[in-house]
Amino acid sequence: MTSSSAFNVPDLIRKKRDGEEHSRAELEALVLGYTRGEVPDYQISAWLMAVYLRGMVAQETADLTAVMAASGDQMDLGGLPRTVDKHSTGGVGDKTSLILTPMLAALGLTVAKMSGRGLAHTGGTIDKLESFPGWTSELSEDRFIAQAHDIGLALVGQSRDLAPADGKLYALRDVTATVDCLPLIASSIMSKKLASGAHTVVLDVKVGAGAFMKTLDDGRALARAMVDIGTRAGRQVRAVLTDMDTPLGHLAGNSLEVHEALATLRGEGPQDLTELCVALAVEALAAYGEDEAVAETRARATLHDGSALAKFRAFVTAQGGDGTLVDDPSLLDVAPGRAEITASSAGFVDRIDALSVGRAVLALGGGRERKGETIDHGVGVELVRKPGEAVASGETVLRLYHRDGRGLETAQRLLTEGLSIAETAPVSEKLILDRVF
Amino acid sequence: MTSSSAFNVPDLIRKKRDGEEHSRAELEALVLGYTRGEVPDYQISAWLMAVYLRGMVAQETADLTAVMAASGDQMDLGGLPRTVDKHSTGGVGDKTSLILTPMLAALGLTVAKMSGRGLAHTGGTIDKLESFPGWTSELSEDRFIAQAHDIGLALVGQSRDLAPADGKLYALRDVTATVDCLPLIASSIMSKKLASGAHTVVLDVKVGAGAFMKTLDDGRALARAMVDIGTRAGRQVRAVLTDMDTPLGHLAGNSLEVHEALATLRGEGPQDLTELCVALAVEALAAYGEDEAVAETRARATLHDGSALAKFRAFVTAQGGDGTLVDDPSLLDVAPGRAEITASSAGFVDRIDALSVGRAVLALGGGRERKGETIDHGVGVELVRKPGEAVASGETVLRLYHRDGRGLETAQRLLTEGLSIAETAPVSEKLILDRVF
Repeated sequence: MTSSSAFNVPDLIRKKRDGEEHSRAELEALVLGYTRGEVPDYQISAWLMAVYLRGMVAQETADLTAVMAASGDQMDLGGLPRTVDKHSTGGVGDKTSLILTPMLAALGLTVAKMSGRGLAHTGGTIDKLESFPGWTSELSEDRFIAQAHDIGLALVGQSRDLAPADGKLYALRDVTATVDCLPLIASSIMSKKLASGAHTVVLDVKVGAGAFMKTLDDGRALARAMVDIGTRAGRQVRAVLTDMDTPLGHLAGNSLEVHEALATLRGEGPQDLTELCVALAVEALAAYGEDEAVAETRARATLHDGSALAKFRAFVTAQGGDGTLVDDPSLLDVAPGRAEITASSAGFVDRIDALSVGRAVLALGGGRERKGETIDHGVGVELVRKPGEAVASGETVLRLYHRDGRGLETAQRLLTEGLSIAETAPVSEKLILDRVF
Repeated sequence: MTSSSAFNVPDLIRKKRDGEEHSRAELEALVLGYTRGEVPDYQISAWLMAVYLRGMVAQETADLTAVMAASGDQMDLGGLPRTVDKHSTGGVGDKTSLILTPMLAALGLTVAKMSGRGLAHTGGTIDKLESFPGWTSELSEDRFIAQAHDIGLALVGQSRDLAPADGKLYALRDVTATVDCLPLIASSIMSKKLASGAHTVVLDVKVGAGAFMKTLDDGRALARAMVDIGTRAGRQVRAVLTDMDTPLGHLAGNSLEVHEALATLRGEGPQDLTELCVALAVEALAAYGEDEAVAETRARATLHDGSALAKFRAFVTAQGGDGTLVDDPSLLDVAPGRAEITASSAGFVDRIDALSVGRAVLALGGGRERKGETIDHGVGVELVRKPGEAVASGETVLRLYHRDGRGLETAQRLLTEGLSIAETAPVSEKLILDRVF
């Protein structure tokens, strides 16, 4: 007898419809039954809408996440010391993982991470790393674990079948207006993190007009839900809430972001990006009991003493990449075409819409709209000036890196629409808005 | 461009999810799109759950009903005078239609009605009429209209494709815990009534433990919703709310109910059944502007002056049935087997559960569980004593009419479970609890 056959599915839907709480066994019947194809999508979509409108208590959300995590393969990282995983809820020009993961390795933690190529405007972490010729995200499990042991950092594509229930549920949520529901968002993210096996997870929860979470309160609630899921699963989860109305750093696009990541690993990065990486590293160390002030000093030091850069070099080389490009980034492919967006009047940069920048990179060929599309690593956008900076009329604010003019007109239109110049300086927003743990 | 392609379905689901109101065009996109197979069931089930939890305002419910009514064939009864249709929300031993429809014809109204065989414990109206050898529910549209003109009464099976959207939506509601939702119940019933074409509809809304509507307040709300739908569609709809904790009359089962209907048409029927038929006839006449006191006198007279019985005889004969059985009901087939349930102690009959009686008839072979099953017209249950009546220990309360003992044990167990004898007389419930128009 399968677990789903012990329950009557309409009864379970009715329970949630009436605001009652599910047991773990009930969630297994629904979610695993659906994943196995025994419970039809029309019943699950009705249930998802009931969850959307009736909510879930913390224990239900934790149980749902655990059931989803157990729906496929689960990585065993038990043999590795002080494992850390990192997740960001999305962001344009977010090259944080490229910097943070070698920092964590340099700090004595172990990052053995799965990363998606995903469908992002500007490519995922794996796309960015493929800017290094020869670098591969395909490692055997043995080599993956051995490399994590040796260097403290290994990164593979999602070859394993992690939390397949999440993929199936997400596809259904996407077409039934049940995406932006806190317990469903939290369980979706955390199911993959639990299945990935790290003991500690640091989360970067983006807040702002262009983010999933529009307000700080919504962002806090999501962070709280994810921390709670982790705690109930015996993991350590810590979150920082960050403003994402403007892209991080000055560069968006695959090779361009690698450039900026390398600069940051040399201690020469833009302040916002550096501070976020340090803050996330502090959370990871604090999760392992380290004093926060000590942790911050140590984390910052890795960007100045060359230890994080050395870890990054070792990591790129271990996965087949050309390590010489780490020390001579000018060898990275950058598209030769240039175009600029200038200020139409004197004043201050008021707003550079992160989503517009992302869409511009996509238009230039640097992202993908459909799974399997190849991307151009060399194209992208440079934020020559960032919000709050003064500009003269006609001065360059944004620079486009294009290949033979491909997508240039669309990208220029998008960027012009996303840029506003004001007469007075905008109130500067803090980058790190809050922490939750 | 089809109507559904003008809308994005997830946007429409989101709208209802957020408690907003749908326009008629939006409801067309959803419901007609679903009926045509263009909108998948998993989107409609999410939407149904949103409707369940967010509700619908009166105009939306009326629009939904009109859209469902227009999803298939629509009867044109425009050429017939003073048309009336009748609907009951279900009931065991409900032979009301057999009596009411000839009464209405005798009163100068026109009943041109479609009736379902349905899945009822005790058979539908068509099953009951098939107790008359030769009687057919299959008439051509021309003959159906002509007979309604001539006699004022014609009754056909649901050969036409009336409100196919309702059938499809109901099947989906049934497996997604979205059945007992007032706007969906009201629109389901009324869509078929609107498509059936009568100008006036009288509704018998059953209330009680065994009914769809458990409380009088719920029954009133359903009646109000249905009356409102009718008004917004330019029809006249009136409802009576009736108690259904006990079967109407003394007999349940097809031929047995015809026996009781004929007795009632001769003015010799049980009081509860007679009063309900008179009450419904009064509503029909009042809808056409007749004074209620006059209407009641006239309605009651049809049961004593032979006019309703004459209409019934003409109707049975016109549709091929043997009219001699109308005047000599002893010729109707009644199963020869008898068994009795007696009072286990002296006292008063406290309760005879309507659903238990229905299930007993089904067990004896008098109903169908699956479409297409043949039924035994001769079996059934007689309520020798009804709730409130005094009984001596060992006295017969219920009598079973069975064929060669088929299903007898099950029927006896069901009836014994549904019967209770009390030391004191129960508080007698009124049959007609309220009216809504």
